[in-house]
Amino acid sequence: MKRIVIFLSFIVFLACKEQPKEVTTTSIVGTTIEETLSPKDNFGIVIHGGAGTILKENMTPEKETAYKMKLEEAIRIGHTILKNGGTSLEAVEKTINVLENSPLFNAGKGAVFTNQGTNELDASIMDGSTLNAGAVAGVKTIKNPINLAREVMLNSPHVLLSGSGAELFAKERNIETVDPSYFFTEDRMRSLEKVKETISKKEADKTTAFYDHTIKDSKFGTVGCAALDKHGNLAAGTSTGGMTNKKWNRIGDSPIIGAGTYANNATCAVSSTGWGEYFIRAMVAYDISALMEYKGLSLKEAAKEVIQNKLTKLGGTGGIVAIDHNGAITMEFNTAGMYRATMNATDELTIGIYKKDE
Amino acid sequence: MKRIVIFLSFIVFLACKEQPKEVTTTSIVGTTIEETLSPKDNFGIVIHGGAGTILKENMTPEKETAYKMKLEEAIRIGHTILKNGGTSLEAVEKTINVLENSPLFNAGKGAVFTNQGTNELDASIMDGSTLNAGAVAGVKTIKNPINLAREVMLNSPHVLLSGSGAELFAKERNIETVDPSYFFTEDRMRSLEKVKETISKKEADKTTAFYDHTIKDSKFGTVGCAALDKHGNLAAGTSTGGMTNKKWNRIGDSPIIGAGTYANNATCAVSSTGWGEYFIRAMVAYDISALMEYKGLSLKEAAKEVIQNKLTKLGGTGGIVAIDHNGAITMEFNTAGMYRATMNATDELTIGIYKKDE
Repeated sequence: MKRIVIFLSFIVFLACKEQPKEVTTTSIVGTTIEETLSPKDNFGIVIHGGAGTILKENMTPEKETAYKMKLEEAIRIGHTILKNGGTSLEAVEKTINVLENSPLFNAGKGAVFTNQGTNELDASIMDGSTLNAGAVAGVKTIKNPINLAREVMLNSPHVLLSGSGAELFAKERNIETVDPSYFFTEDRMRSLEKVKETISKKEADKTTAFYDHTIKDSKFGTVGCAALDKHGNLAAGTSTGGMTNKKWNRIGDSPIIGAGTYANNATCAVSSTGWGEYFIRAMVAYDISALMEYKGLSLKEAAKEVIQNKLTKLGGTGGIVAIDHNGAITMEFNTAGMYRATMNATDELTIGIYKKDE
Repeated sequence: MKRIVIFLSFIVFLACKEQPKEVTTTSIVGTTIEETLSPKDNFGIVIHGGAGTILKENMTPEKETAYKMKLEEAIRIGHTILKNGGTSLEAVEKTINVLENSPLFNAGKGAVFTNQGTNELDASIMDGSTLNAGAVAGVKTIKNPINLAREVMLNSPHVLLSGSGAELFAKERNIETVDPSYFFTEDRMRSLEKVKETISKKEADKTTAFYDHTIKDSKFGTVGCAALDKHGNLAAGTSTGGMTNKKWNRIGDSPIIGAGTYANNATCAVSSTGWGEYFIRAMVAYDISALMEYKGLSLKEAAKEVIQNKLTKLGGTGGIVAIDHNGAITMEFNTAGMYRATMNATDELTIGIYKKDE
């Protein structure tokens, strides 16, 4: 009898010792890729360059190629960092830098203009391993706001700094600054003029009119990235110029932890893009994490519930990119398009712009 | 057989039609009051005047009385509004006004000083019936920042405005402004000097040193209110001067929806007070709502989990006051004390300062 007990205990011990194979499910709008990877080899990265009324009929083949090339350049930077064993934080920061430095996106160079014809930049970053976070709002001279957000996280006791105070901190920490004229682009100035023109034609309804969401190029263009590194750490970051014609030092969701950016090793890393006010009210990024943690939903289910149900019911538009602690990637949006790309541990690259893209 | 089916259907119909009696549980640190009220008679209000190292041995009887009298004056304003059928939004705003106008609390008159010797005020408000929200950060001339937050919510397309832009909006909307000197108080200036002195005696550790949380009067003093009105609508609001000696236009959790303030008719209304950076990272106010919605926890259980477990593990200190859609009130904090008061539909008043108060 004793022998049988010992034998059975040994069997149970062996059964417990055997690790289940980790199955990574990468969902890319309509397609699902399953891979079997051990945790230490597993990593992945997903980026967005903004969601909005991005329609094929309004795009030239040249412009489309330019966007795709820049998305690929950006994601490959982060992917290489991850592949070489670098941290998800570094991958997120360096990937976003590429998008910030391109005039194609509404972040860094290429930021939209405020009502006053200035550029006010917001950014945030979060480390899923520590739940530490950093953010800046309304900075005017910081070349790469995501770098300053990271500096706030790592070298200040704060999470969110704003305006000239954030710029003073940047100076103290030797973060690269530029003359505000660096952010000027013809394209964005034309957008501002067009928005103002449309509004002046309308009777001024102070509560809603000064953004015209029907204007074709009112795509939001915020950039963001979420990544899982080989050490099992998640990170997410978001950078933006906000909304064309914004007034009154408006702060959107991009620098708000839980709305624009969230990362938690226990669940997922998320970066948002869209109509910021709704993303703040719906706590979009954190809500996806909460649905995973509290209701046991998968990342895909949680993102779908938050974007297609909760946010949509509230009247908000936009999307998110996210990656979970197993490397599963999800991109969810309720707009006509979202600039986006993914790369996983097997070097597979996907790039999408429109809703129907795979 | 057919008759039996019809009879059973009728029984089921009757059983479904009978509304369960609504039981309101008001928990006041150690005591639990249960009342049976019909929804239309039910209402309640809870306020805080900040959490921190508030110890009886550091308090004079005169000071204690002054705090208690002001807490009572404030909560009775909101309670009367609710009793007369007014909205929870109005009750929250008017109650907070009393606390903002008192030099006893760190909000409005009585706000702490920044490192530069200025006062930068933050506030936010949320309407649980619409999930609409408004907030302002870093304003210097607004007498009652909570009023401006409400104006942002109701008469702008934005949620969060900051600095001089928020003040420009205030001017356009005829919100009362004051000279910055209005916010000067001897007490707060002494606190700033004491903090600076303590820091200069220490080796400067840039990441943590310039707030000394061991200084006895470093209680945070943010004010806030959560209320349920007779129409079944929840609202919450928070107003603060932030942290003594804050730098770089730091924004804390008070103007951040989901961190400092949250209200949702489906769950609860919450106002936070404490070390803002941790409240942002933990999304304290929204997390309590999420635990109720997604895990079915009671307000009391959810608040306890977030403050005593999640926030405490992260290293954060502070507390919340909250009321749920049934009128149950909870106050939860992990500090030595929190200025607080409650009133319910049966006119019962409770006031507390220290942990052991009932």
